[in-house]
Amino acid sequence: MAFFDELARIVGDSNVCKDAGTIERLARSTGPRQTTPVGVARPAKREEVQAIVRLAGQFHIPLFPISSGKNWGYGDACAPTDGNLILDLSRMNRIIEVNPDLAYTVVEPGVTQGQLFDFLEDNHLPLMMDVTGAGRSASIIGNLLERGSGHTPYGDHFATSCNYEIVMADGSVIQTGFGPYRNSQAQHVYKWGVGPSLDGLFSQSNVGIVTRATIWLMPKPEKFVMFIATLKTKDGIGPLFEAIRRLRLAGTLRSTLHCFNDRRLLGSATGFPWDRASGEQALELEHPDLFRQMCKEYGVPAWAATGSLQGSAVEVAASRKAVRHELKDVPGLDRLLFIGDGTFAFTQTLARSLRRIAPTSLLLRRLESIKLGRDMLLGRPSDATLKGSHWRARIQPTDSVDPLDTKSGLAWISPILPMTAAAIAEVSRLSEQTFHKHGFEYQATITSITDRALIAVQSISFDRSSETETMRAGRCQEELVQTLLDHGYVPYRGPSSIMRQVWAAAPIYWQTLAALKHTWDPAGIVAPGRYIDQPT
Amino acid sequence: MAFFDELARIVGDSNVCKDAGTIERLARSTGPRQTTPVGVARPAKREEVQAIVRLAGQFHIPLFPISSGKNWGYGDACAPTDGNLILDLSRMNRIIEVNPDLAYTVVEPGVTQGQLFDFLEDNHLPLMMDVTGAGRSASIIGNLLERGSGHTPYGDHFATSCNYEIVMADGSVIQTGFGPYRNSQAQHVYKWGVGPSLDGLFSQSNVGIVTRATIWLMPKPEKFVMFIATLKTKDGIGPLFEAIRRLRLAGTLRSTLHCFNDRRLLGSATGFPWDRASGEQALELEHPDLFRQMCKEYGVPAWAATGSLQGSAVEVAASRKAVRHELKDVPGLDRLLFIGDGTFAFTQTLARSLRRIAPTSLLLRRLESIKLGRDMLLGRPSDATLKGSHWRARIQPTDSVDPLDTKSGLAWISPILPMTAAAIAEVSRLSEQTFHKHGFEYQATITSITDRALIAVQSISFDRSSETETMRAGRCQEELVQTLLDHGYVPYRGPSSIMRQVWAAAPIYWQTLAALKHTWDPAGIVAPGRYIDQPT
Repeated sequence: MAFFDELARIVGDSNVCKDAGTIERLARSTGPRQTTPVGVARPAKREEVQAIVRLAGQFHIPLFPISSGKNWGYGDACAPTDGNLILDLSRMNRIIEVNPDLAYTVVEPGVTQGQLFDFLEDNHLPLMMDVTGAGRSASIIGNLLERGSGHTPYGDHFATSCNYEIVMADGSVIQTGFGPYRNSQAQHVYKWGVGPSLDGLFSQSNVGIVTRATIWLMPKPEKFVMFIATLKTKDGIGPLFEAIRRLRLAGTLRSTLHCFNDRRLLGSATGFPWDRASGEQALELEHPDLFRQMCKEYGVPAWAATGSLQGSAVEVAASRKAVRHELKDVPGLDRLLFIGDGTFAFTQTLARSLRRIAPTSLLLRRLESIKLGRDMLLGRPSDATLKGSHWRARIQPTDSVDPLDTKSGLAWISPILPMTAAAIAEVSRLSEQTFHKHGFEYQATITSITDRALIAVQSISFDRSSETETMRAGRCQEELVQTLLDHGYVPYRGPSSIMRQVWAAAPIYWQTLAALKHTWDPAGIVAPGRYIDQPT
Repeated sequence: MAFFDELARIVGDSNVCKDAGTIERLARSTGPRQTTPVGVARPAKREEVQAIVRLAGQFHIPLFPISSGKNWGYGDACAPTDGNLILDLSRMNRIIEVNPDLAYTVVEPGVTQGQLFDFLEDNHLPLMMDVTGAGRSASIIGNLLERGSGHTPYGDHFATSCNYEIVMADGSVIQTGFGPYRNSQAQHVYKWGVGPSLDGLFSQSNVGIVTRATIWLMPKPEKFVMFIATLKTKDGIGPLFEAIRRLRLAGTLRSTLHCFNDRRLLGSATGFPWDRASGEQALELEHPDLFRQMCKEYGVPAWAATGSLQGSAVEVAASRKAVRHELKDVPGLDRLLFIGDGTFAFTQTLARSLRRIAPTSLLLRRLESIKLGRDMLLGRPSDATLKGSHWRARIQPTDSVDPLDTKSGLAWISPILPMTAAAIAEVSRLSEQTFHKHGFEYQATITSITDRALIAVQSISFDRSSETETMRAGRCQEELVQTLLDHGYVPYRGPSSIMRQVWAAAPIYWQTLAALKHTWDPAGIVAPGRYIDQPT
């Protein structure tokens, strides 16, 4: 086919694949639905992306750009429809600049969390980054374009990035913010530019292909204290977040607070007890005693939360006092631990001993989870976070932690909530009911993404190797998205498969966007159907 | 004319004007250029705006929407071209909701800073807002759509607002963020929504008319301390902002720091000495001794800066220590004063006595400027800030502080700079040279708008009643905009008259936007030429 010959001329033979093995690998999804591409091209630079876009326009082949393609739980590397060419940008992996004074870096889409972290450490730069729990191989630009979130004060990745370089569907190149101006002095430090600000238009979108971005970094804090709060009872979570809201609005707390429910925590500690339960119902319903016993065995509370404080030593001491004061009356509060550098060092010495003398002990597990939580709060990517994605997998992970390799099913439904106890109660009730109706454990994390908003990441963990379980997961996802939409809880992000429901919920809005898509990409070359619908 | 008859049918006779007096009043500008509208319509609600937009489409009359029209120094209420109908939204002035827990308000475009402030105070709400120095009558939505800035941690008005309701050029209505979804729970608390985020597209733009927005508010802080730093010498300003950058990046300082140079401070204290200077050259060049003497008389340092700390008492004490530590080595630092509630109350008792016994004393002036600075930092709008806009006016303000009434000329050139001493030095040098070449005092304020970016608001103050001075101001503005663009310093905002230069500096970018404008507003009904160029 002439298209692939031309493609090979642009990127070289070895960077175009359309063999069955590659196609099968790229078609895999953690979600209930998958699509099959026609092949993959791996450009090494922006000019090649431009040439591919023009070529795709001539041949009417839609392109689906991925950075590293690790969008687990939200559609992976799958295009909305079959027949796309996957445009894999992972070879474009240059760290173009790091500025230690102004605390930013300029990266290409292939740069991963692990790569940037290593670069900062290897060069002894006094900077830290924000990371997600998606592991070392996740792309920084890929995550920010999905408006993903992390754990530090820079947890909103879209908000802490700017100056996107974009290849448009006609092959032209623009930059956002102050990027388009020659010798631009403020392009890396100010997001909005002059005139309309376009960053938002290119996030969760398909009107262009982002080939470079500026990411803001943080100076390493003088003093850092992690805190862990655990709740004995479910109902403390609402009051906990009301307290967190006050602390965030007052400016005391700047990190995000991540809260994990018991079933989410259990899924990180171990796998589903396939030998003792059918998996046709949620474990907590089918075998409540077994569930309680497992929680006890793995030291799992009703909820566990991690957050951090940073600043000068006196500032951190002052903030610590404020946090303790606000959280003290949260119902069911079991422990509130503050872990500074000294305490942390001690826990890790202890962990080293335990690894020898009691490698399966509960205490060791706890100490290891402290390390993982601390890593996230300090912007250190870790593949250990991926362990939680294998709950219902029958193949347990060995070398690879990639949930695609273990056929771990993951469907994440992630509505945004106002930070109130009432909203948490309503979303939890609606979601748990739906999970239970379809026979899944209700796994949830709730994160304070801004001063007044929460993301509830609710995970349907299923066995992707079982056809019936995969179908059930698909029905559960569809029903829950609709139930939440009907109650006004809209997902902040999602796989392409849920977008029909989102479009139907706001038709005029999405038609307005489809008209814009048509203007900039009349042939529908860039990721047709990804977030923006095709014009009718 | 049938158009005006139809218009009167929509908004009522008394809300349509096209008499000479009204037109003359609306054509006034503080800037060097002005344009003449065909009349004004004042709708009372969104449905009327929709009807007007459709009517304007039928008659091919361009509309120029204003909220309160107080865009002093940046084009006032003037459309880019003659012949627009001014769409005055000031009657749409409902405060639709205030939520004290989640700390936000929902307002219409006519709501002014003064109105919202009074509402919060009158209802004893424990919330504060961020305000600009534009006085009580400035519109909140008008300012945020120009991406204006204030003094508190919520100083970036665009970043701290969401959920815009927009009348499109075809008369349809959309909302941004989570606004378009029925019964939407998170519409007021989360900016980005799902899919492309459009807030940026409607700011500094002309693709729709914003008729409602959510504005985030702050809880009143438990403890508040203002600080004032003054510099004896010019060259301390770079190191001062490098220290501020470290404090902001560390999270210690959350308010913006506003720095005023000597000529800007003098302009707030008094008027140009027309009896002793020609005004054909900058005062500091024509009469350096007189300038120095006036600075001495009015107690004006080389630079004065104001900022604030807020939080719990211990947190503020800790932050204060960190600020003192970072600023102690700034060259030329004269005073660093921290003013808490107690000290402030004492200064105001003193001021009351001085008003009787020494009403023109320097000390009283200082105490009054402390009050003004504190008001800004606490989100209290004040018309006293407008005093600084009358420097070269020959008519000195009496009842009205509106610079249009005193024929005060104001042209603000406001580039964004990275927060480094080098950038401040370069922009100051280029700008001061250009101001001096055209015979104007170099008045500048520099503000830390984010953790790593500054806005330098550089004011050409001129006598709008003098034709030659007005022409000189126009040439100075044009030359300085070009010089700064050539060096990579792009304005963050500006009057329509500078946009040709901005467009020419990034032609592909602006053509891409013009295509979008054409899609949503093919007849060019909404503010043609305002920020986005017409398609060619």
